[in-house]
Amino acid sequence: MGVPVWSVDPRTGKQREQVAVEATAEEVDAAVRAAATALPALADRSVRARLLRTAAGLLERDAEAVVASADAETALGVPRLTGELARTAFQLRTFADVVDEGAFLDVIIDHPDPDAKPIPRPDLRRYKIPLGVVAVYAASNFPLAFSVPGGDTASVLAAGCPVVVKAHPDHPATSVLTAGLLREAAVAVGLPADTVTLLHGFQAGIELISHPLVAAAGFTGSIPGGRALFDAAAARPRPIPFHGELGSLNPVVVTPAAAAERAEQIGTGLAGSFTLGNGQFCTKPGLVLAPAGDAGDRLVGALTGAARDASAGVLLDGRMRENFLRGAAARAALPAVTVPVAAGDGDDPLAVRPGYVVVDASELAAPGAYDLLLEECFGPLTVVVRYGDPEQLGAVLDRLPGNLTATAHLGAEEAATPDGSAAALLTRLGALAGRVLVNGWPTGVAVTAAQHHGGPYPATTSTSTSVGATAIERWLRPVAYQDTPQALLPAELRDGNPAGVPQRVQGHP
Amino acid sequence: MGVPVWSVDPRTGKQREQVAVEATAEEVDAAVRAAATALPALADRSVRARLLRTAAGLLERDAEAVVASADAETALGVPRLTGELARTAFQLRTFADVVDEGAFLDVIIDHPDPDAKPIPRPDLRRYKIPLGVVAVYAASNFPLAFSVPGGDTASVLAAGCPVVVKAHPDHPATSVLTAGLLREAAVAVGLPADTVTLLHGFQAGIELISHPLVAAAGFTGSIPGGRALFDAAAARPRPIPFHGELGSLNPVVVTPAAAAERAEQIGTGLAGSFTLGNGQFCTKPGLVLAPAGDAGDRLVGALTGAARDASAGVLLDGRMRENFLRGAAARAALPAVTVPVAAGDGDDPLAVRPGYVVVDASELAAPGAYDLLLEECFGPLTVVVRYGDPEQLGAVLDRLPGNLTATAHLGAEEAATPDGSAAALLTRLGALAGRVLVNGWPTGVAVTAAQHHGGPYPATTSTSTSVGATAIERWLRPVAYQDTPQALLPAELRDGNPAGVPQRVQGHP
Repeated sequence: MGVPVWSVDPRTGKQREQVAVEATAEEVDAAVRAAATALPALADRSVRARLLRTAAGLLERDAEAVVASADAETALGVPRLTGELARTAFQLRTFADVVDEGAFLDVIIDHPDPDAKPIPRPDLRRYKIPLGVVAVYAASNFPLAFSVPGGDTASVLAAGCPVVVKAHPDHPATSVLTAGLLREAAVAVGLPADTVTLLHGFQAGIELISHPLVAAAGFTGSIPGGRALFDAAAARPRPIPFHGELGSLNPVVVTPAAAAERAEQIGTGLAGSFTLGNGQFCTKPGLVLAPAGDAGDRLVGALTGAARDASAGVLLDGRMRENFLRGAAARAALPAVTVPVAAGDGDDPLAVRPGYVVVDASELAAPGAYDLLLEECFGPLTVVVRYGDPEQLGAVLDRLPGNLTATAHLGAEEAATPDGSAAALLTRLGALAGRVLVNGWPTGVAVTAAQHHGGPYPATTSTSTSVGATAIERWLRPVAYQDTPQALLPAELRDGNPAGVPQRVQGHP
Repeated sequence: MGVPVWSVDPRTGKQREQVAVEATAEEVDAAVRAAATALPALADRSVRARLLRTAAGLLERDAEAVVASADAETALGVPRLTGELARTAFQLRTFADVVDEGAFLDVIIDHPDPDAKPIPRPDLRRYKIPLGVVAVYAASNFPLAFSVPGGDTASVLAAGCPVVVKAHPDHPATSVLTAGLLREAAVAVGLPADTVTLLHGFQAGIELISHPLVAAAGFTGSIPGGRALFDAAAARPRPIPFHGELGSLNPVVVTPAAAAERAEQIGTGLAGSFTLGNGQFCTKPGLVLAPAGDAGDRLVGALTGAARDASAGVLLDGRMRENFLRGAAARAALPAVTVPVAAGDGDDPLAVRPGYVVVDASELAAPGAYDLLLEECFGPLTVVVRYGDPEQLGAVLDRLPGNLTATAHLGAEEAATPDGSAAALLTRLGALAGRVLVNGWPTGVAVTAAQHHGGPYPATTSTSTSVGATAIERWLRPVAYQDTPQALLPAELRDGNPAGVPQRVQGHP
């Protein structure tokens, strides 16, 4: 009968219902082969756009049931999940617009030139085609926006690739529900239902990454899990691109001037950001560099008050709760660390309370010292590092791994001075992260064309983004046509531009 | 005193001179660290453009010495190498133009929108920054255009990255000469000489790919060598992008109509293409699907005549010569293979003669059968597969690995018919390769914006190109700035576009 897949209520730890069984190797193979048969039908861009818009509409039609299911499985709460559903529908429609516009095809046309030096040039016309079946590994912390109907799936379908989603075990019922909606959308626009297929099970996820017909993968999750799949993708006889978003500390630097001007505001803002969604965001600010001295003390004071006032909450699952409590305790137990607000058990049996710890930058100066404080602790905990001077600040930044985001809180004069220390700080932060923020908080990732949600390893395993319009680039590869008759060219590459897509012709956009 | 690096004359097999010694692990580390110090100075785009143009000028200034050195080490001949030098200078200047224009920065600007649904939008501005030090592994068969001053180096410098080149052992003297010119160019424009550093030695190449400060790598060479480096790049604690161009069969499909119309022209054209440069091109047509029957017989007859007339030539080195002779003999010895023109020793002691073999498509129908014929044989040999019908053709195409190119020779009516069998064939070939040609030959790779020199594995280890303007994309990653004051933004992202680069603002290019 197979290994059962249960939906579990994290508020009680109790099983809610058996949702499915884990996929066997044969079922993984069948799902991938079924998805592959949908590839030719997805070549039509207008059908893809309709698929994405239809899926958004179905998600909204069944919003109540989807949100209720997600809340029951994740304890993220109805307001947050209602917002997440709206964001997910918005992402699907945004990618429909991307498909319609066609700029993602990167059409470049160079006319022949028999007189070109050093050698004559042929007619060359290049655009991008879908890679093939894409495997998507859903995230724990966004049961919609980074899961079955999320940004990876939307960008994969927009690119013209069928998708096989590996459900996250934290929300299997929601996965089944939303996969059903995507399949319904496919059928509604005349595509095979298997344009989207769904799999459950850890072992199924491993089989999936090695399947010969899988051409690329997207992943959102932990460093160990993502790295294991990345390694498997690279070790295949035919390696495939693996776009994984793994982990991030999201450092925040508060300058002395910023602290002097806005200590309390920054302290409370930080508390709001690191406790948002019970700290279960990949963009949670996990390491905050605050100046020593009076202004920094006021910042920490405000943080203490706000962190104590923050409510306890239930984490996504029991294992995460144990890891969080163990991780918070281990950090609090380090010799030079102080604990103004201790993270720990909440009043409700399975809830946890947010907390933070403080350490002096001098303790982090030596390579290898306090490595644990430079690792992400998933959940409502942050680490404040007090620094005395720019050298100490720089020494800590030197030790940081890659990040999704890096934030600077600056004083008013710094923020208005080009070529000064603030500009140098932003360049430094840009080397550490894929998104640099000034006077803001990294939680909250806008879905726009200019967004970049990625960063140096381990933030991501590639140079790509998983949020924003350019996320579609991950699932495409260029093909150039040389001296090909007009009649045989794809419409996007023909003279007169019958497909109406942006073309860069003879170097002119 | 270190392991000596000798320049060898392939025409005699004799050592010419000791050029250098192989780099020790300490020297690799020193070269990478020296290169890394050049990163900040390369941030200035105008300096990069001047560097590339100055390098092109110096290469032309010393053309005679460079060509003489390359010819002495590779036996490729002065005319070919004179052309290759012109192409190399052209590539350098093309990338200078790419740097000046700035489209490669992919600037996207989204203004803030406090009323945006589902949530307010911040100000987001994204462009691309250099990855850091890049390792370039030079090719055997292009001592200039794909080696020290070649396309990888040009695109790396254009992107703003310092480069450490691992010289190919087939042309160490030319590598030293051209690295000196690049370093002279760097100093001439006010950059550190170590913007470009050079290493010799197999072991040094392995140390290089694992160096913590190396951020990406480019490679042109064999499948085993490239795969070993790819695996090492993926296995690092911090994996890095590895853009390798490894191997390609470059299938050619001749339709019955094309053979009926132009059998002799296709046969002689094929001979010219597979023997060009003694068959030492990554785009050599190595597998030709020709129809059975009379027209196909005429094609093969013309090929036989032209292949017999083709001159013998010296290969790049003695090991390559041995591999070629062994590979050609092994293919000729297969049971169902016939050998109209046998490849083998030439009249000159170290020369080889071109040849080709023929096999019936039915022999290739079974998976695993005659695998050897579906592997690249570097040197002047090609495999002609005679097919009886479209099903036989399709069965052979189904067995092919990824390729740099795939070519169709079509009849006049086919070439003018949309939505017919020729269009389907081109789609099929596009799934197999990164460049699709009609009625041409894949040798000869134009350096233009629309070029794509890459393809599904093993043609390349990524979805990128190593030729053409978009090759620069390999060495960049995006960074988004959120809510950053104008004074602190890079010039390319500011309002009013003071840097004068293409900007996509609010969705409008």
